Amino acid sequence: MDFFSLFLMDFVKQLQSPTLGFLIGGMVIAALGSELVIPEAINQIIVFMLLMKIGLTGGQAIRNSNLTEMILPAAFAVAVGILVVFIARYTLAKLPKVNTVDAIATGGLFGAVSGSTMAAALTLLEEQKMPYEAWAAALYPFMDIPALVTAIVVANIYLNHKKKRRAAGESLSKQEYLSKQPVAAGDYPNQEDYPSSRQEYLRKQQSADNRVKIWPIVQESLQGPALSAMLLGIALGLFTQPESVYKSFYDPLFRGLLSILMLVMGMEAWSRLGELRKVAQWYVVYSVVAPLVHGFIAFGLGMIAHYATGFSLGGVVILAVIAASSSDISGPPTLRAGIPSANPSAYIGASTAIGTPIAIGLAIPLFLGLAQAIGGS
Amino acid sequence: MDFFSLFLMDFVKQLQSPTLGFLIGGMVIAALGSELVIPEAINQIIVFMLLMKIGLTGGQAIRNSNLTEMILPAAFAVAVGILVVFIARYTLAKLPKVNTVDAIATGGLFGAVSGSTMAAALTLLEEQKMPYEAWAAALYPFMDIPALVTAIVVANIYLNHKKKRRAAGESLSKQEYLSKQPVAAGDYPNQEDYPSSRQEYLRKQQSADNRVKIWPIVQESLQGPALSAMLLGIALGLFTQPESVYKSFYDPLFRGLLSILMLVMGMEAWSRLGELRKVAQWYVVYSVVAPLVHGFIAFGLGMIAHYATGFSLGGVVILAVIAASSSDISGPPTLRAGIPSANPSAYIGASTAIGTPIAIGLAIPLFLGLAQAIGGS
Amino acid sequence: MDFFSLFLMDFVKQLQSPTLGFLIGGMVIAALGSELVIPEAINQIIVFMLLMKIGLTGGQAIRNSNLTEMILPAAFAVAVGILVVFIARYTLAKLPKVNTVDAIATGGLFGAVSGSTMAAALTLLEEQKMPYEAWAAALYPFMDIPALVTAIVVANIYLNHKKKRRAAGESLSKQEYLSKQPVAAGDYPNQEDYPSSRQEYLRKQQSADNRVKIWPIVQESLQGPALSAMLLGIALGLFTQPESVYKSFYDPLFRGLLSILMLVMGMEAWSRLGELRKVAQWYVVYSVVAPLVHGFIAFGLGMIAHYATGFSLGGVVILAVIAASSSDISGPPTLRAGIPSANPSAYIGASTAIGTPIAIGLAIPLFLGLAQAIGGS
Repeated sequence: MDFFSLFLMDFVKQLQSPTLGFLIGGMVIAALGSELVIPEAINQIIVFMLLMKIGLTGGQAIRNSNLTEMILPAAFAVAVGILVVFIARYTLAKLPKVNTVDAIATGGLFGAVSGSTMAAALTLLEEQKMPYEAWAAALYPFMDIPALVTAIVVANIYLNHKKKRRAAGESLSKQEYLSKQPVAAGDYPNQEDYPSSRQEYLRKQQSADNRVKIWPIVQESLQGPALSAMLLGIALGLFTQPESVYKSFYDPLFRGLLSILMLVMGMEAWSRLGELRKVAQWYVVYSVVAPLVHGFIAFGLGMIAHYATGFSLGGVVILAVIAASSSDISGPPTLRAGIPSANPSAYIGASTAIGTPIAIGLAIPLFLGLAQAIGGS
Repeated sequence: MDFFSLFLMDFVKQLQSPTLGFLIGGMVIAALGSELVIPEAINQIIVFMLLMKIGLTGGQAIRNSNLTEMILPAAFAVAVGILVVFIARYTLAKLPKVNTVDAIATGGLFGAVSGSTMAAALTLLEEQKMPYEAWAAALYPFMDIPALVTAIVVANIYLNHKKKRRAAGESLSKQEYLSKQPVAAGDYPNQEDYPSSRQEYLRKQQSADNRVKIWPIVQESLQGPALSAMLLGIALGLFTQPESVYKSFYDPLFRGLLSILMLVMGMEAWSRLGELRKVAQWYVVYSVVAPLVHGFIAFGLGMIAHYATGFSLGGVVILAVIAASSSDISGPPTLRAGIPSANPSAYIGASTAIGTPIAIGLAIPLFLGLAQAIGGS
Repeated sequence: MDFFSLFLMDFVKQLQSPTLGFLIGGMVIAALGSELVIPEAINQIIVFMLLMKIGLTGGQAIRNSNLTEMILPAAFAVAVGILVVFIARYTLAKLPKVNTVDAIATGGLFGAVSGSTMAAALTLLEEQKMPYEAWAAALYPFMDIPALVTAIVVANIYLNHKKKRRAAGESLSKQEYLSKQPVAAGDYPNQEDYPSSRQEYLRKQQSADNRVKIWPIVQESLQGPALSAMLLGIALGLFTQPESVYKSFYDPLFRGLLSILMLVMGMEAWSRLGELRKVAQWYVVYSVVAPLVHGFIAFGLGMIAHYATGFSLGGVVILAVIAASSSDISGPPTLRAGIPSANPSAYIGASTAIGTPIAIGLAIPLFLGLAQAIGGS
């Protein structure tokens, strides 16, 4: 069978997966006005259990792994995380009616990783019996943190430049203004002080802004509930014998819990659509295109690692999916704290309402089908 | 062994079922003042998971079913749902100290279906290894929605008639009053307008009331959390391949989650007893007798379907139990919105404190025992 | 192999258990500032499910047990529960800067039992394949209730004596004061009444205090969420056939749910450390030493029962662990109600921040290792 028919068949098969079915089901019942509510406490514990399971799997695998294999994929993950922000900076941010800072924040969110999307990809890989390195999930923070750090740094540098320019313009016009005014020294004794003290204040501000502290951003990302659950799972997988709870609890419940979370994400995506209408329509275009572009870049880099160091095709799919995914849990609060002037409606709406459904419903089957077609051909 | 001893033995055996045990246990610990609390978020997710499981089972079964078999039982379900409201209208509502609108609302709630009670019946059927059509659970909305719609329509027609009569009496007495008064036209220029404008207002009101809109009630029922979870489950069972999550998650956890819900319902039943004391004691009599009467009517109709179209005895039990059950989740808010003048203490107290325990603890073993005795004799 | 090496090996092996791993992991991520939160609703349902499972196990076992075997261990449990309070009364309470009432309350909490710690011990016994009587978990209330009752009674007797002494001193000084004042009867007609009415009031108070009612304390303990879940489980295990839900739900989920609870307890322990700093540092010393002392006393009494009536070594470990444990759920509210003048920061901080981690992380492996060494040598 030729490459394209293989790919199409695999793609259609995956749409019947319960994972995608629950996502679409959630959107449909939200659109029909269902009053079904999954309580927030349940969402929180589901996210914990999914990422703990992913972490435990990874931790147990790392014990028996040759970690030098991980170096190239991890480096590519870092590269994609940083690149995604610059793509947003030089495409989305340049579009009409798009606020630059909002665009940079959106890039950060699309570069960051969604644990739920990754969980969905792992489930689909297992359903399709496609092998992957168990440590592949541990690539998550290598893409997530650089993306958030880069977005916050780039946004602050931009704001800084803008402020400098504005301050320069202001002091110029001030000087012009002053030069045009008849000055009566005795009357306004402190007048000349004003611009200079203002300039000093601005200079202080700028120097503070120039030194955007990177470590607090990294720390905040690592402390987020999703990432800290996964890292704890890795640590427990490495240093204890968690097989008994893993086999009786975290592993068997994984798919079912994921199905509930997919439902929630579908409902959430529908309810966030309204927020998107408030911002420029270019966000919609970006949210549809970006996951696929990011995914293809990562897929390409993953294939390099595949041929260079034997990185599995399943691993390539995971790398592509985490690139295609956009953060839903840990990303938004970190960005809100790091870029307080960005409009959360823009980046959260774009990610939750469009980015995530595209990543789960389109990018996962796409890259999985692609890998199967490459592996099968 | 004769029919009656067979029945008695089966009845006693079922009282040892954990499902009933947890229900009675909940009542006992609530009576003893236990501070045990099952958080509301847990109740919500349990109801979701039970009805999702029932829906998935049904949806997967419908794929392989001859749905023409379902026509007669579904028609009987609709008939029972409507009939139950009229029974309440012409028995409970006629009793002394019983408010007619409250009685109609109570009839609507007893005609509507409890997902938890149905889940308990399905579990007991499985424990007793009594086969039933997997689509039988899908009879739920066919009884639930007609009951709620009928109750709201009947209540509004009643309120309407009452208003008309009152308005007629009022305008009559107004006319009498006016005819008896010496009219001084110049003094009261707008006097004659008053009754006519009032009548117009009433006429508008009445015409609005006469057109009780049925579709919003149906829609609201379908959008309720319990029913929309079940319908989503049916859709996912029909259109996706949910076997993996069904077998690893929804199916194995079903009984355990049901045991927690039974405990909650037992505790809730005890705590609602107080509300019942506020309303006429006839509600207590109705709540004890009605589930059994409704169940026997449905059991009889089910037996007709059994002999006519081969509807299984297990299916007959399910039809009888959903008739005996009274709604606990989706019914009350729909009724509150549809009949705002009815007193929720009356209908919720009657259903939760007495109707549901009678349905689960008495009607399920009764109809199951009856079916086993019929099947075994 | 000699006794001590056997013991050391067992001790180290248990530190790799996931139960302890999650506890330590919780402390570590809390110390690192993780924002991971396990919602309160989840904690509540986990505690319910653990104690329901322990109760169901016990209830099913008691059906087939010779309960006369239970008499001696139960008597020892009562003795330890009472003794622990008196130990605190005559050690901790005598230390400098320690408030006597706070110390008695702390003793009550350390005498009371933690369901989660007991669950951890049962899990470790099963992991180590060490047999124990299934009714051993039912020793819980025999130690828990006497400890709380004793603490409340002892605290009230102490407060009473203090008040009497103070009242005596006060009325004396009042008399002295009065005797020194020039009395003008007409001016202060009610003056002499004051001390006498005050004394009457105090007398009434004292007589009320002298009759510290024991039954309400027992009742309140039994009604607490943890104990009433366990007792309900025992009752359901005794009187119904809960095997289906036990095998499909409560039993398989036990270890996994315990792992989440251990994580929560670790995080909670860390966050309570601050409270401990507010009270005298002797609480830290007490919290470290007391669990081991109490455990050794109970271990010794358990060994008497082992040689006298054949109480299993696993049962001895359970007796020692429930003595070492300090109550985390049901104890604090009972104590707060029974000894309102005690400072909760003192007893809750000591128990949660140090007592529980010591009991789980040190006492369980210690007594388990000791029993294995005794059994193996």
